[in-house]
Amino acid sequence: MAKLYGVGVGPGDPELMTLKAVNTIKKCSVIAFPHRKTAYEIALAACPEIKHKKLVSLELPMTKSKEEIYAAHKKAAFILEEYIKNNEDTAFLTLGDPCIYSTFMYIERIVSMHGYETRIISGVPSFCAASAAFKISLADGKKQIHISAGDDDIDEVLNYNGCRIFMKAGKSLKNINDRILKAKSKAYVAVNCTMDNERLYTDIADIIKTDGDIGYFSLVIVKDEKD
Amino acid sequence: MAKLYGVGVGPGDPELMTLKAVNTIKKCSVIAFPHRKTAYEIALAACPEIKHKKLVSLELPMTKSKEEIYAAHKKAAFILEEYIKNNEDTAFLTLGDPCIYSTFMYIERIVSMHGYETRIISGVPSFCAASAAFKISLADGKKQIHISAGDDDIDEVLNYNGCRIFMKAGKSLKNINDRILKAKSKAYVAVNCTMDNERLYTDIADIIKTDGDIGYFSLVIVKDEKD
Repeated sequence: MAKLYGVGVGPGDPELMTLKAVNTIKKCSVIAFPHRKTAYEIALAACPEIKHKKLVSLELPMTKSKEEIYAAHKKAAFILEEYIKNNEDTAFLTLGDPCIYSTFMYIERIVSMHGYETRIISGVPSFCAASAAFKISLADGKKQIHISAGDDDIDEVLNYNGCRIFMKAGKSLKNINDRILKAKSKAYVAVNCTMDNERLYTDIADIIKTDGDIGYFSLVIVKDEKD
Repeated sequence: MAKLYGVGVGPGDPELMTLKAVNTIKKCSVIAFPHRKTAYEIALAACPEIKHKKLVSLELPMTKSKEEIYAAHKKAAFILEEYIKNNEDTAFLTLGDPCIYSTFMYIERIVSMHGYETRIISGVPSFCAASAAFKISLADGKKQIHISAGDDDIDEVLNYNGCRIFMKAGKSLKNINDRILKAKSKAYVAVNCTMDNERLYTDIADIIKTDGDIGYFSLVIVKDEKD
């Protein structure tokens, strides 16, 4: 039976796709992706032949309405299931890794509940790419790592020991900056890491001084001076 | 000038290496790796041609003596620097991602301090591979993720909100089990994830009942029932 594959395409640089991601995309006849297309563009650069496959752009709105989101996930699941029923292996492309804050897992739960087979192909998460760009270790020895994707738990997360990572941090920058100034911490900010328009800041205040709005694909790594 | 590359080879399955890891290994004339060789075996399966390159097995002892560890890192750095001085691009292979609990970063700091150029090639961390194997999302929406590699902060980490990951958890299994039984949590245990001898347990008690000792490449993901 055909399967639905959740394929992590990594943080942005097509070379950071895994061999397994590329091989899975090659063997699938249907390639699905969120309508914002970033994941598709990355995969296209690594496997130009995908443009000759059946391409399915899925509407996945960014909204706070739970009903609207669930309806979109259900609709996407039904669209993908039609291909699987037709015995077509289908790849859903997702940025980073499919198990870390990805829409794919919501869709996977529905498709899987309906009795279809699914597989997950891991990808390099954006925080690994960002730490590589800054040449910093996220954690050595017995240190802890904490990852947050929200904006209402900044205080809580900054209080943890070890390395703290804020994903999708564009809107939270000023808040994070105000709070880390009080602690003896250092922040590294990566915007569009490994993408063509990558920007790296080792001082969060530099961004606040300029535009302040750094967009969706931004990530802050906060480390204590002693770490 | 030649460079030192820290190359993440991913969690175990050679197909989970990135294109960039494979391309970097191909262009380097010297391939270094810890003497335990797991990283080398993974890379060899993806690029068999590396056996014809200069292979450097580095003694990196697992000891608690900080002096012994630092001496080993310094010795490894000096060995690698000899190749770089000789204008040979050198790859140091490391399991998972180089920025997450990897020996490479200690060596990188020394080599970099001595004025040589370094680059980090990200890899898929083991916890991404484990969550893919269990088909669970590490975090959705605004949930947090916490990663620990120690064994003396189990209580602290289990008290955090969201998903908790214990790496190198072989020795801590019984302690983790005793504590999660009290909370309404569920543990997923992956041993040698994506390697030939992979074992996956969705009930930590199953392991305690049998052998109990599950080795070094083991990882526990703890999630609350509601997540």
